[in-house]
Amino acid sequence: MKVVVILAHPDKGSFNHAIALTCINTLAENGHQIIFHDLYDEQFDPLLCHSEFYKKARLTACVRKHCEQISFADGIVIVHPNWWGQPPAILKGWIDRVIRPGVAYEFVGGDKGEGVPRGLLKARSAIVFNTSNTKSGREKRAFGDPLERIWKDCVFGLCGVRVFYRRMFNIVVASTERQRKKWLKETAGIINRYYPEKSRKKPS
Amino acid sequence: MKVVVILAHPDKGSFNHAIALTCINTLAENGHQIIFHDLYDEQFDPLLCHSEFYKKARLTACVRKHCEQISFADGIVIVHPNWWGQPPAILKGWIDRVIRPGVAYEFVGGDKGEGVPRGLLKARSAIVFNTSNTKSGREKRAFGDPLERIWKDCVFGLCGVRVFYRRMFNIVVASTERQRKKWLKETAGIINRYYPEKSRKKPS
Repeated sequence: MKVVVILAHPDKGSFNHAIALTCINTLAENGHQIIFHDLYDEQFDPLLCHSEFYKKARLTACVRKHCEQISFADGIVIVHPNWWGQPPAILKGWIDRVIRPGVAYEFVGGDKGEGVPRGLLKARSAIVFNTSNTKSGREKRAFGDPLERIWKDCVFGLCGVRVFYRRMFNIVVASTERQRKKWLKETAGIINRYYPEKSRKKPS
Repeated sequence: MKVVVILAHPDKGSFNHAIALTCINTLAENGHQIIFHDLYDEQFDPLLCHSEFYKKARLTACVRKHCEQISFADGIVIVHPNWWGQPPAILKGWIDRVIRPGVAYEFVGGDKGEGVPRGLLKARSAIVFNTSNTKSGREKRAFGDPLERIWKDCVFGLCGVRVFYRRMFNIVVASTERQRKKWLKETAGIINRYYPEKSRKKPS
């Protein structure tokens, strides 16, 4: 399987980087093809300009490459911190520019944008790993945990990705090394569950 | 009153620009001091880097200016389209960089980030205008309308801004000029309600 892994955290020593590395290593061990983007490291330009709005827009080589990769992906893994119930701006811009009409979705009917969209992504599953410094109960109660519906419904649901799993690790700032190791083990387990070894036979 | 108006849309001919202009004109007519930022026009850099994470970080002159302005604002008006249940990346980056610890909030207790935040903004009210090409019912049902809690709770609630009002205009792409004029009249009415004429006496 081709799996796209997208990471958005500015600190190379971050736990987000450790999560992404665990995903990559586990996917590689399982024999999958990995397309990895560390958006900060690559200095991805997150600004959608007006000329890129439309389906037939001329795209930069960088955006074109991202669009091709996401089109052909069998699986998608996203890793980012919870900043204000949303992804960091660089990843928001990746959504704005790469999850495009004609690539990730299209409109049924008039195609003027007011219709109901139809998903075009062929990926069967998307996994989102988040880090947070807010307790789960408070995140839900005080803030409504917007990231859940943003990724599950606004992005992947709309684009036709049926299987969705999200794991928010918290509280990272106060975590011990032991706890983080446990979380990375859990990360590998999640990847194994959704993207198992290629040669592994299904039980008969 | 000092009112900060933040606009995020790449097309100068957009309805978002018309909304922002209506806000500015109405605020000016009512005798308020306006601090206006068209983030796309100013090419605001939305990328929070690691060195900016901490309270005592060295900030760029641009971010420092934004922080001072938001600190002293009595009112805040935000204008942006609904892109994936979130603001455009440029505005997400404005949140990431300007709504900072020590400026907009601080942590009670250990101040290591795992505590409960306390709002520091002195603005008494924040108004958010959104445009959308999704019907309100579908936005709530299919996507959960993440923008409501993002702005109301994740951002302004956390930062101590008690009065919040949001208006989503839809469906913009299929709207008539008459409809848009009506919406701009409504925009002016909302501004008049929250930021009335300075000299207007309260009814005795």
